[in-house]
Amino acid sequence: MVPRYARPAMTAIWEPEMKYAIWFEIEAHATDKLGELGVVPASAGKALWDWWKTNPKIDVEAIDAIEAVTKHDVIAFLTWVAENVGDEARFMHQGMTSSDVLDTTLAVQLDRAAAILLEDLDKLLAAIRTRAEEHKYTPTIGRSHGIHAEPVTFGLKMAEAYAEFSRCKERLEFARKEIATCAISGAVGTFANIDPSVEEYVAEKMGLAVEPVSTQVIPRDRHAMFFAVLGVIASSIERLAVEVRHLQRTEVLEAEEYFSPGQKGSSAMPHKRNPILTENLTGLARVVRGATVPAMENVALWHERDISHSSVERFIGPDATITLDFALTRLTGVIEKLLVYPERMQKNLDRMGGLVHSQRVLLALTQAGVSREDAYRLVQRNAMKVWESDGALSLLELLKADDEVTAALSEEQIEEKFDLDYHFKNVDTIFARVFG
Amino acid sequence: MVPRYARPAMTAIWEPEMKYAIWFEIEAHATDKLGELGVVPASAGKALWDWWKTNPKIDVEAIDAIEAVTKHDVIAFLTWVAENVGDEARFMHQGMTSSDVLDTTLAVQLDRAAAILLEDLDKLLAAIRTRAEEHKYTPTIGRSHGIHAEPVTFGLKMAEAYAEFSRCKERLEFARKEIATCAISGAVGTFANIDPSVEEYVAEKMGLAVEPVSTQVIPRDRHAMFFAVLGVIASSIERLAVEVRHLQRTEVLEAEEYFSPGQKGSSAMPHKRNPILTENLTGLARVVRGATVPAMENVALWHERDISHSSVERFIGPDATITLDFALTRLTGVIEKLLVYPERMQKNLDRMGGLVHSQRVLLALTQAGVSREDAYRLVQRNAMKVWESDGALSLLELLKADDEVTAALSEEQIEEKFDLDYHFKNVDTIFARVFG
Amino acid sequence: MVPRYARPAMTAIWEPEMKYAIWFEIEAHATDKLGELGVVPASAGKALWDWWKTNPKIDVEAIDAIEAVTKHDVIAFLTWVAENVGDEARFMHQGMTSSDVLDTTLAVQLDRAAAILLEDLDKLLAAIRTRAEEHKYTPTIGRSHGIHAEPVTFGLKMAEAYAEFSRCKERLEFARKEIATCAISGAVGTFANIDPSVEEYVAEKMGLAVEPVSTQVIPRDRHAMFFAVLGVIASSIERLAVEVRHLQRTEVLEAEEYFSPGQKGSSAMPHKRNPILTENLTGLARVVRGATVPAMENVALWHERDISHSSVERFIGPDATITLDFALTRLTGVIEKLLVYPERMQKNLDRMGGLVHSQRVLLALTQAGVSREDAYRLVQRNAMKVWESDGALSLLELLKADDEVTAALSEEQIEEKFDLDYHFKNVDTIFARVFG
Amino acid sequence: MVPRYARPAMTAIWEPEMKYAIWFEIEAHATDKLGELGVVPASAGKALWDWWKTNPKIDVEAIDAIEAVTKHDVIAFLTWVAENVGDEARFMHQGMTSSDVLDTTLAVQLDRAAAILLEDLDKLLAAIRTRAEEHKYTPTIGRSHGIHAEPVTFGLKMAEAYAEFSRCKERLEFARKEIATCAISGAVGTFANIDPSVEEYVAEKMGLAVEPVSTQVIPRDRHAMFFAVLGVIASSIERLAVEVRHLQRTEVLEAEEYFSPGQKGSSAMPHKRNPILTENLTGLARVVRGATVPAMENVALWHERDISHSSVERFIGPDATITLDFALTRLTGVIEKLLVYPERMQKNLDRMGGLVHSQRVLLALTQAGVSREDAYRLVQRNAMKVWESDGALSLLELLKADDEVTAALSEEQIEEKFDLDYHFKNVDTIFARVFG
Repeated sequence: MVPRYARPAMTAIWEPEMKYAIWFEIEAHATDKLGELGVVPASAGKALWDWWKTNPKIDVEAIDAIEAVTKHDVIAFLTWVAENVGDEARFMHQGMTSSDVLDTTLAVQLDRAAAILLEDLDKLLAAIRTRAEEHKYTPTIGRSHGIHAEPVTFGLKMAEAYAEFSRCKERLEFARKEIATCAISGAVGTFANIDPSVEEYVAEKMGLAVEPVSTQVIPRDRHAMFFAVLGVIASSIERLAVEVRHLQRTEVLEAEEYFSPGQKGSSAMPHKRNPILTENLTGLARVVRGATVPAMENVALWHERDISHSSVERFIGPDATITLDFALTRLTGVIEKLLVYPERMQKNLDRMGGLVHSQRVLLALTQAGVSREDAYRLVQRNAMKVWESDGALSLLELLKADDEVTAALSEEQIEEKFDLDYHFKNVDTIFARVFG
Repeated sequence: MVPRYARPAMTAIWEPEMKYAIWFEIEAHATDKLGELGVVPASAGKALWDWWKTNPKIDVEAIDAIEAVTKHDVIAFLTWVAENVGDEARFMHQGMTSSDVLDTTLAVQLDRAAAILLEDLDKLLAAIRTRAEEHKYTPTIGRSHGIHAEPVTFGLKMAEAYAEFSRCKERLEFARKEIATCAISGAVGTFANIDPSVEEYVAEKMGLAVEPVSTQVIPRDRHAMFFAVLGVIASSIERLAVEVRHLQRTEVLEAEEYFSPGQKGSSAMPHKRNPILTENLTGLARVVRGATVPAMENVALWHERDISHSSVERFIGPDATITLDFALTRLTGVIEKLLVYPERMQKNLDRMGGLVHSQRVLLALTQAGVSREDAYRLVQRNAMKVWESDGALSLLELLKADDEVTAALSEEQIEEKFDLDYHFKNVDTIFARVFG
Repeated sequence: MVPRYARPAMTAIWEPEMKYAIWFEIEAHATDKLGELGVVPASAGKALWDWWKTNPKIDVEAIDAIEAVTKHDVIAFLTWVAENVGDEARFMHQGMTSSDVLDTTLAVQLDRAAAILLEDLDKLLAAIRTRAEEHKYTPTIGRSHGIHAEPVTFGLKMAEAYAEFSRCKERLEFARKEIATCAISGAVGTFANIDPSVEEYVAEKMGLAVEPVSTQVIPRDRHAMFFAVLGVIASSIERLAVEVRHLQRTEVLEAEEYFSPGQKGSSAMPHKRNPILTENLTGLARVVRGATVPAMENVALWHERDISHSSVERFIGPDATITLDFALTRLTGVIEKLLVYPERMQKNLDRMGGLVHSQRVLLALTQAGVSREDAYRLVQRNAMKVWESDGALSLLELLKADDEVTAALSEEQIEEKFDLDYHFKNVDTIFARVFG
Repeated sequence: MVPRYARPAMTAIWEPEMKYAIWFEIEAHATDKLGELGVVPASAGKALWDWWKTNPKIDVEAIDAIEAVTKHDVIAFLTWVAENVGDEARFMHQGMTSSDVLDTTLAVQLDRAAAILLEDLDKLLAAIRTRAEEHKYTPTIGRSHGIHAEPVTFGLKMAEAYAEFSRCKERLEFARKEIATCAISGAVGTFANIDPSVEEYVAEKMGLAVEPVSTQVIPRDRHAMFFAVLGVIASSIERLAVEVRHLQRTEVLEAEEYFSPGQKGSSAMPHKRNPILTENLTGLARVVRGATVPAMENVALWHERDISHSSVERFIGPDATITLDFALTRLTGVIEKLLVYPERMQKNLDRMGGLVHSQRVLLALTQAGVSREDAYRLVQRNAMKVWESDGALSLLELLKADDEVTAALSEEQIEEKFDLDYHFKNVDTIFARVFG
């Protein structure tokens, strides 16, 4: 976790205090159920919750000190709770194994992290939608291979992003369900020393599903899927970030990240306004994506479990969720405040002398009976002149002066092919598909 | 694609003949709809299909030769079709762009690949289930950290695998839906020169959903998700493969890959039976997983598209699907024919002198009123003796001879803790959860 | 391996015929030495080489047919050789294990692949150097964050690429040495049944170093390093490819990939000239990089060896080397034939109204005694006006009209700061560092 | 960075205080040289160093507060220094750009990190060597595919590790040289406003080489190579860690991680001694390896630079170096204190009834004139009986009772093939190769 790329709500999920609070809840709920089953005295759970209601400060340092001796984190925690609650605490953890607590806690943490990320996505989607509607019909050049192709609208670019992040949301909802399971099944998952109903009870209390079959641990294919989805979302962030970076290039300048008055772009070149937020997002995407393969490598644990996954998760659990939360929020801000320059878009659109309309002319010629090959040749020879003039010549004028072209199409017909609105007649249809 | 790790049905999807056949179908369906809309003569589509009904051989070399000149694959194909169909073929591809064909074709290929992989998963699940039921109550030692823990059954190991691959199936079904979309939206996705109804028509005919908004291409986050899911499935294959490899170790030998009479394990050591299939699967998992990050790097195409994704997909499209198909099938064979040795499992279970029952004794002591710390100490001091004797001493006997233990538990009570069936009382519950 | 991204010389290294030829050489050299040591008859090696001198066709299908029965590739090969050479062939492979042959062969293949890649790098370096010298003083705008910064020369851009690929060459030479080792040490690397002098002899004959200690296999950290270096080289290819793609953008157009007359850029937009070669290189870089992590995952083989690495290497061995060879060669072609447009570079340089000189003015003001903060403010307020005029206003004129500026600097002093050559005074120094 | 996997010396390199201290040194050295060149007053550098000699506390919070306003880290730092040093400080940073400071600082940090890692490797190598010599002739079974193969010694296993980490050291030395360069070349690397001699001076003072050609930044292929080497080293750590984990398996138990008296292996199973350190190392290897691809993705910066690499480096710079330092040190401790059990090694060696000697018998039969195929058949049929008896039968006895075998070999000859020392005759040769 790098503090400058972290937001408090997500960070809190990964603090030791939160972890221990979840541990406590799991243990206390389990003790309640064990009490109900008659395995431990019913008073045990009550004692735990009575203490909990006093809103006790979780003394992380004290627990750490015990762990330094026992070299076992859960035992250290149980010992510390026992020191505080007293004798009744000895009934805690009956028939359970450390991983029951650890893995269910990780499930709660990832579930809560997913909840925040889903909110982030909602905010991002709302921001994108606002800009999409605002610029639904703002003409801009569509580019393939970085080369001018045909007109699109800036709203369409936003609609694409909206559709993409809507899919990201579905993926995250899918992955969240995968990750949100509770396992309280004992040392090797057989429920030898604990009844399956305890697992069911705790699962319900903690808002989780029951893990149908665990070993000592919750199977790590679930986590691999979760982090892979975060990697895909990060890649979509990168796509939109790269789009903004391209639009802000000096020669393009169709949009810019918001530039606050106090901000200095460069210590040396005071005129510079750099797309540093989206460049930053491009880098953060690499970081989140970097968790994917380690998470997949975590799947093949030995037999009923080994603990190799644990150190990996100590890094990628916080890093990937905190960084993605930050990145989504930063991207939302970028989109909300993005300075959009329609005049410059129009200027860029016009700079190729009308070449972007060549495809329509090509079709018109074909439909007027010219062979595909001839039509291509006719358009290309005029297009090349425009191209070589760097936009000084106009394709429209050249075509109107080309006898072979005018033999097939009237001047009026040619002019009609240069109409911008022609390209936008289905924008509404697309918006309806995307925004419903 | 490495031929020895490839099966014909999956390989066929990626052959040029199949690709061109799909190209043709897309173009011909589009021409039909364009005819219906009056954009091209209705006879155009008919001419295409009439030719197609003659079951013409697709002349890959001829198309390649044209591409060598035009340096454009779709134009080469259209030219070749026109040479065969005649004049009516000139109406093909009206208002479409190459990517409409290429991307929709890739969607069809991945959709069909997914169909095969889903069948593979069904077969694997069936094989696992059979072995799970066969060995539902075959006792074997559960291991954490590679160290003996408590008893499980071999059926439970299989049930875990079943649950894991069931999740893999759900993931693949999810990812398949993502990938199975049709885009026929023209040069920059605006439908400027082609009506959206053509896309809808072709989508239906090809068994795909409509891509709500495309640029020139289908957005690559869909493909990233797809390949990420293949990577997760590969990781689950690795997990089961590693399990078999462990079971087959000389010192463990609880199961073995089937060993055919003609097979030589080693040119030098004739007695060796090596788990080469599951070692191979471990490697193949790395290969499939290797497609994940490149697929994610493909997402951030520039503006409405660049073609950097294409070369990546020429590798990972065939490689990941063909390899995964092969791996799933190989794994199915391994499981179906796996030689399982229950006697050896029992022997291994017994070799620790009953240490695996220590947890039960620990609990019993606690329940009999001994403090957690004391109970731990009592069990541990006896356990350590057994441990140091390498299983020559028996924990049961030592406990019965320990005064502090017998002060809390009767001999009968102690003996009862060493009953194997105790551990299996919830196997049926778990099976019900997993197999329904 | 994807045929369209493959060149014959590199592909040949990975053909079965080549593999078997190397196998034969290793076995025959080993037999020679074993003969010298008196372990086998001296006639055995001679018989092998006598047959080999007849330049026998290696019958891959026949060997495959034998392998189908024995399920062991080396035994299949030895059997086939024995069928051809006769009785003397039985002395082959004495005391050796399959991996002795397989791993040493892989070393030879990777060593030869490295030789080709080093030649590729030499050609690329030569191409870059030629363009660097040609454009040593061609002014072009330097950009940070995609935003105009200060002037550089196109030659400098090439010099950077030259320095980068020179480093790549050193890395590959380093990695080549790592990979080029010979192991003939028997079943577990103890030389129990074969004298170390055989290894030394074969190593020398095959142009390899001796592997100081092998297990059954050559340790895979060597290969991991090799493929990691290929991944780094691929990343450098990506960098230069991305530079070209940027330069070719419609709005920038400072350079273009060579565009042959017969080539059609798009089926729909005849005017388009797309940077498809460098986009392709961007994708190929992802593919080569994709081999890095699987190669690293191959390192941790179990005990003296498992065979999980083998399937991975069957993919990445050919794929990474063939693709990188193709990519380096393609990049060399792109650079050699790159269309460079100095006029457009100058035009772009001028389009910001002189803002690129702001840093020099800032420094001049500071040196004239203005505080850093004031100097910044003075330059920034004029720069902002130019910026907002989209280059219509000139920074030089505005500064000359700014009283606070002229209070510190004379008109002449200001003008001198807008001299382009000022920026290039150290180009020669840099070239001397890079090209020696 | 995860505190529990971090050591202070390495962590200190990445603390803000250290970063700012390096910034100061670079700026002050540059100011000295600029003073010598007459660009700034000679008193400027002196003023800076005079202040520095007072050992001023670097006030990170104050600098952060300034950055919150300026949104530029280097300007914030310069402002803070100016507040402390006074008027002379305004000559700092003359003609430099932020990246001159930032990138050279990163070079210093990585260079120092590499120095620590090289020390770590030396300690690890020493620990491995000690155990290698201690167990030079301790017999243990060599395993391929997890299956008993032929005898090796535990010392040989250590020698392999020694050779591997020696290679790692060479790689790191190579990568360290790559990373240790100084760039002070101004906004786009042209030295327009600063003389190259400043770069040379600072490089020498900071113990770095001169970067031959920089843009605004030091090229990132250097860093990619560095992190790739860390990834390879991590993979070698994983290999040795996996070896220990295998040796500690209950059924194998040839070695164990040191188990301190106070340590509790499991809250439930007091007899358990788990290889948690090496499992942890397996996970940490995944983490370090996870930096490789993001570092490679950082190479293709746009034009003279973009800042996408920066956020990635804020994670992987500290994480990969700190984690690797921790992992190397932990591994050194594991090896130093590893409990090695020669008796168990011998017991395991013997448990296959002599099958491990089958290769020698096979060779002897061949050398006695039996055809390869017949020899194989003879050995195999006896070996299979031993195999099926689970080591109860002895291969030696069976062979002596096989008429076809005794027809070729005398009883004495057969017995001689079961001599363990035979396998170790070249151990000394191998040790001489590895340890010199």
